[in-house]
Amino acid sequence: MDKIEHIGIAVRDLGESNSLFTKLLGAGPYKMEEVASEGVRTSFFKSGPNKVELLEATDPDSPIAKFLEKKGEGIHHIAFAVDDIGAEIQRLRKEGFKVLNETPKKGADNKLVAFLHPKGTNGVLVELCQEIKEE
Amino acid sequence: MDKIEHIGIAVRDLGESNSLFTKLLGAGPYKMEEVASEGVRTSFFKSGPNKVELLEATDPDSPIAKFLEKKGEGIHHIAFAVDDIGAEIQRLRKEGFKVLNETPKKGADNKLVAFLHPKGTNGVLVELCQEIKEE
Repeated sequence: MDKIEHIGIAVRDLGESNSLFTKLLGAGPYKMEEVASEGVRTSFFKSGPNKVELLEATDPDSPIAKFLEKKGEGIHHIAFAVDDIGAEIQRLRKEGFKVLNETPKKGADNKLVAFLHPKGTNGVLVELCQEIKEE
Repeated sequence: MDKIEHIGIAVRDLGESNSLFTKLLGAGPYKMEEVASEGVRTSFFKSGPNKVELLEATDPDSPIAKFLEKKGEGIHHIAFAVDDIGAEIQRLRKEGFKVLNETPKKGADNKLVAFLHPKGTNGVLVELCQEIKEE
């Protein structure tokens, strides 16, 4: 895996949290994006070669809404950049990890993504993400 | 802030988790270090320009032992690299963040570190860390 692509943080109020993280990181979000299929609204901040993604639920049945209800605000997942997500999924399956997505799905920020079950990774929700390149 | 320097993950058994993260990240820890003052044993993995730090408690009264007891295994903190930790602490205090360390303290991996109170950062324990340079 190449680097920590981003850290995903579940928040209750994206507007308030955007202000807070702008103060923390010294610059505002460079992108905001709604991913209707996941029931989330997101914003992205740069931190050098890495990103911080804030996630607010738009649907009470979304994974982020459930996370907030159960655990409150905080770090939701860590995403690692990969070059070939299909090959990485195969490699990790062989190593015994439970990959939650049979095939990678389209995530925010122009990425193909897949998640590993946190029960197999010390309670950490790990995302693999690969940049979608223009054909 | 320059980049995500590392992600800290609280684990119950460092030996088992070292094996797990070696499979996940494709390479073993490049460093193991005990920080007696914090009551932790740590291991560090590279992920491109970033690191993953695993933390196991060596003292039942340590912050990591308490975190494990309360929340179980999982992501404990996110650390951002800074060039001048003293200036950054001043800047963040002026912005209204609660900095937990009056003066930076010596952390693992040859760093000066300071933490922000998670109540002021959407439940995220944020660490600032500055490389200690040879005089």
